[in-house]
Amino acid sequence: MIRSEARGLLLSRNVLIEADAELSYLFNRARFGRSRITSQEEKQWFQLDMEEAFYLCFSLECLKVIGKDGSIKSNKEPWEYSKSEKPAFPISYKAYSHLQRKNWVVRSGLQYGVDFIAYRHLPALIHSEYAVLALSKGDNELNGRLRVWSDVHCTVHLCGSVAKTLLVLFVDSNSQGTSYPSCLEHYTVEEETITRWNPEQSREDQTSLRNQTK
Amino acid sequence: MIRSEARGLLLSRNVLIEADAELSYLFNRARFGRSRITSQEEKQWFQLDMEEAFYLCFSLECLKVIGKDGSIKSNKEPWEYSKSEKPAFPISYKAYSHLQRKNWVVRSGLQYGVDFIAYRHLPALIHSEYAVLALSKGDNELNGRLRVWSDVHCTVHLCGSVAKTLLVLFVDSNSQGTSYPSCLEHYTVEEETITRWNPEQSREDQTSLRNQTK
Repeated sequence: MIRSEARGLLLSRNVLIEADAELSYLFNRARFGRSRITSQEEKQWFQLDMEEAFYLCFSLECLKVIGKDGSIKSNKEPWEYSKSEKPAFPISYKAYSHLQRKNWVVRSGLQYGVDFIAYRHLPALIHSEYAVLALSKGDNELNGRLRVWSDVHCTVHLCGSVAKTLLVLFVDSNSQGTSYPSCLEHYTVEEETITRWNPEQSREDQTSLRNQTK
Repeated sequence: MIRSEARGLLLSRNVLIEADAELSYLFNRARFGRSRITSQEEKQWFQLDMEEAFYLCFSLECLKVIGKDGSIKSNKEPWEYSKSEKPAFPISYKAYSHLQRKNWVVRSGLQYGVDFIAYRHLPALIHSEYAVLALSKGDNELNGRLRVWSDVHCTVHLCGSVAKTLLVLFVDSNSQGTSYPSCLEHYTVEEETITRWNPEQSREDQTSLRNQTK
């Protein structure tokens, strides 16, 4: 992918990449972006979320972000732009890259109302396993999820109905601010899963526990 | 139900009612409360949510709330107690009574992470139709739902998967405070449903629209 010298155009909250057959194959294999259908048959366009694009930029260094005039931008510029578009971007990017580094396939969770969906393998082969919410530790005002019980119930119920486990990543900024790249090194991530506790299913265990203590 | 002179015991966020066969039948028919299994076979206990109990108290006047010493409490006392237990109680009670007055069957929405579930008829006969969130207009900090897009997506997706429509009741307190009973008369309710818009399904309509404009 580095050899392909891909260029991505920053548009609102997405990055658009014009891809030839080889690059399309690589994007599809690596599970980055969604292909966009256009009238040009020979060219494919890939639409990347900001987190995906900047992971390719910052971590894998195989994508350059360009402006509308075609000039290549430094990493700092798209970082600042993303923060202005999405104030929680440093938190969600840290969560995204944390999962990517652990070799999970990470996709947008927009349709389920979570930040990401994390798969162990290719989604086509194995059903996705985690619905991920990235929360800023200490300052929940920023993205405001799971502040009330009804939201927790709602999210856990939804995860159950689509056969996923809710994984909450608490990103602690350790008061390091949001300037690139220093902040990312100092951010720490705590993982927590939230599942339903079913008293009917747990009753049997309790009996066996009681038998043991007798 | 008025003749039965029911007495309810206020316990944390619920009201417990000891019911004989006749009262149990009435509660089941009118869809109030959930029956609680105890070791006493001849007596049934019904557990009512605060909104249900106070609707029976305030609006239908067929229930008296008693303290642990057996003394009957005025309506004002349980109102103040409920507010201290659940700050959003005046909002959720207004929403509950608003739906009840329109002859909907209203049940707790706890398991789906919403405030209420509203049915057109008995739940056993017809599938429930609305998942209801009661929000305070202007001051969303109070209960904090639907403040971020991911929460809206999550809730709408969940409603879809359990075949319900999301109904949001915006209760406007019109700066009337929360003192009983004057505040309830001045509160106004705005109803709004939120559903998914499916571009695939809507495409056909668009074509017919285009044909009409031609």
